[in-house]
Amino acid sequence: MLQQRPFRASGNSQEIEPGYVVGADIGGTSLRLALAGMDGKVLSKWKISTAGIRDPHVVVGLIQEGVEDLLRENGITRDSLRAIAAGAPGVTDVDEGVVIATSYLMGWRDVPLRALLEARLGVPAAVENDVNTAAIAEHQIGAGQGIRDFVFIAVGTGIGAGIVLNGKLFHGMNWSAGEIGYMLVPGVSVKPVERGEPGALESIVGGEGIRAQWERLWREDLTPLSRELVATEIFDHAAAGDSLAQTVLNKSAQTLGYAIYNLAVALNCPLFVLGGSVGMHPALWNATQEILAQRDKRVQPKLVRSTLGSDAQVNGAIWLAIETASSRVLSS
Amino acid sequence: MLQQRPFRASGNSQEIEPGYVVGADIGGTSLRLALAGMDGKVLSKWKISTAGIRDPHVVVGLIQEGVEDLLRENGITRDSLRAIAAGAPGVTDVDEGVVIATSYLMGWRDVPLRALLEARLGVPAAVENDVNTAAIAEHQIGAGQGIRDFVFIAVGTGIGAGIVLNGKLFHGMNWSAGEIGYMLVPGVSVKPVERGEPGALESIVGGEGIRAQWERLWREDLTPLSRELVATEIFDHAAAGDSLAQTVLNKSAQTLGYAIYNLAVALNCPLFVLGGSVGMHPALWNATQEILAQRDKRVQPKLVRSTLGSDAQVNGAIWLAIETASSRVLSS
Repeated sequence: MLQQRPFRASGNSQEIEPGYVVGADIGGTSLRLALAGMDGKVLSKWKISTAGIRDPHVVVGLIQEGVEDLLRENGITRDSLRAIAAGAPGVTDVDEGVVIATSYLMGWRDVPLRALLEARLGVPAAVENDVNTAAIAEHQIGAGQGIRDFVFIAVGTGIGAGIVLNGKLFHGMNWSAGEIGYMLVPGVSVKPVERGEPGALESIVGGEGIRAQWERLWREDLTPLSRELVATEIFDHAAAGDSLAQTVLNKSAQTLGYAIYNLAVALNCPLFVLGGSVGMHPALWNATQEILAQRDKRVQPKLVRSTLGSDAQVNGAIWLAIETASSRVLSS
Repeated sequence: MLQQRPFRASGNSQEIEPGYVVGADIGGTSLRLALAGMDGKVLSKWKISTAGIRDPHVVVGLIQEGVEDLLRENGITRDSLRAIAAGAPGVTDVDEGVVIATSYLMGWRDVPLRALLEARLGVPAAVENDVNTAAIAEHQIGAGQGIRDFVFIAVGTGIGAGIVLNGKLFHGMNWSAGEIGYMLVPGVSVKPVERGEPGALESIVGGEGIRAQWERLWREDLTPLSRELVATEIFDHAAAGDSLAQTVLNKSAQTLGYAIYNLAVALNCPLFVLGGSVGMHPALWNATQEILAQRDKRVQPKLVRSTLGSDAQVNGAIWLAIETASSRVLSS
């Protein structure tokens, strides 16, 4: 049964105690929390490693620990916490509050994350895919502010997109819209991928795919650089002039550029925002812009880098929590 | 100034005269009209050639002629006509009622079609892109009935898509969502296209592109068939076993299949409806289904043929007119 959460007032009955929310970003390597006022202004942040932690109950326990630390630190009573929202690295049913599936890193299947958070924290909670929370933040306070239709593309280990259409996140039939790592564009393998494997596009544009390509192409006589480099290092070296690194960068940029172009023509979408540790790299941004500029003049979407960077996910969770505080009531 | 259209009653003031609407489909070769009741039931159809006719005023004059013929034929007074809607073969600003641009066939630029129709017919009017009117019809009474998210793909001379998301047509920033003829998929040319040229994908999947491919590949020793065939004839011969025709069909199906797959992963869209004279061909449908079935199990959108066929456009215009009758008031 649903039950309206009582409106709380303290001291003078006319005076309303200010409310606060917490936004959480659950990652494969770290859990990040931020405490904010109802205007979205971040008061304090909190972070802990999640390396080796998979059990959702343990993750929720860490979130509770973080929330209590944040409240204590800021001298805020538990009663002033209005809501919490969490971004999770997987397909998330926002209506039911369930994380349907995450990648192998977490291995979650049908985790009722919203109910777990509400039970533990006693406030309304919301859950969302982490790329989508980042897209929410870009829409509220970032590069997509005031833009009705845009696509946020996160490139980290893999690649994913948060699609905002008519000013709202578009989730798709089974909550998995934005899986652009599987798109088929010129130059990618058309071999069907097995479950759990990265998509054809992801294996060229995602951080892990970029690293693997470098390793595959590397030969002592082709570059003075180490065979053991990560994507952002490879892009650094490409910018500095290493020709093998430029080959890898150009292939990634071309493939990403084609995917963006396809989304731009299908959705008539004017703006694409690049985020994530690999996606934010200036060399990738520059090279992808060049690819797009070579296309026909009719379709020239604007490509910008995220203005929020690694804060996007947790900021988006804050906005979702603010919305949740006013719209959602606790299941009793 | 906007003015509420007076509610009309005839005879006994308690008795409401039934209302009617007209749906119009403006094509490069013909203009089709249908008269329907407010329940969408078609009473009568009307058709005239538009070969060689480009002037929008002449087209609107023909529509007026058709409307009057339909009303007279069915013994319906002019007062009972509640609204008209027209599908136009080009980018259409639905809010402003303006056809922004059509292909070379019509050559329209910024034609205020809604205002022209309202001035001529004296009833509220609506205008929409013709692929979108077909998608509306598929959603109301066709293959997409009751489906929240689906993509209608019309393959005729060219190719275009009507995208229904969250139960509504998605138009995009500049009213040109669904221009999938420009998508870049494996096997298409990545050469930028000039203005007015067909897109890379369109030149392989569209009727004119299929015809041109056949002509290019044709050699007397490869096929006993004529060099002068149209797309549907080529597909007929492919189904009957001609191997050169099968080569052309398979390339089209593969390219179309990749485009559908890309839209399915990006939008998490469960249903695609093939329409248009070429798109409805069973051989293309079968071959494209095979391409999709070869992809990973995770992404297997359903592919069906339009159940409305060439009636889709005009039927969609009828539904748009019914909606218009209740929502739009005439500018005075």
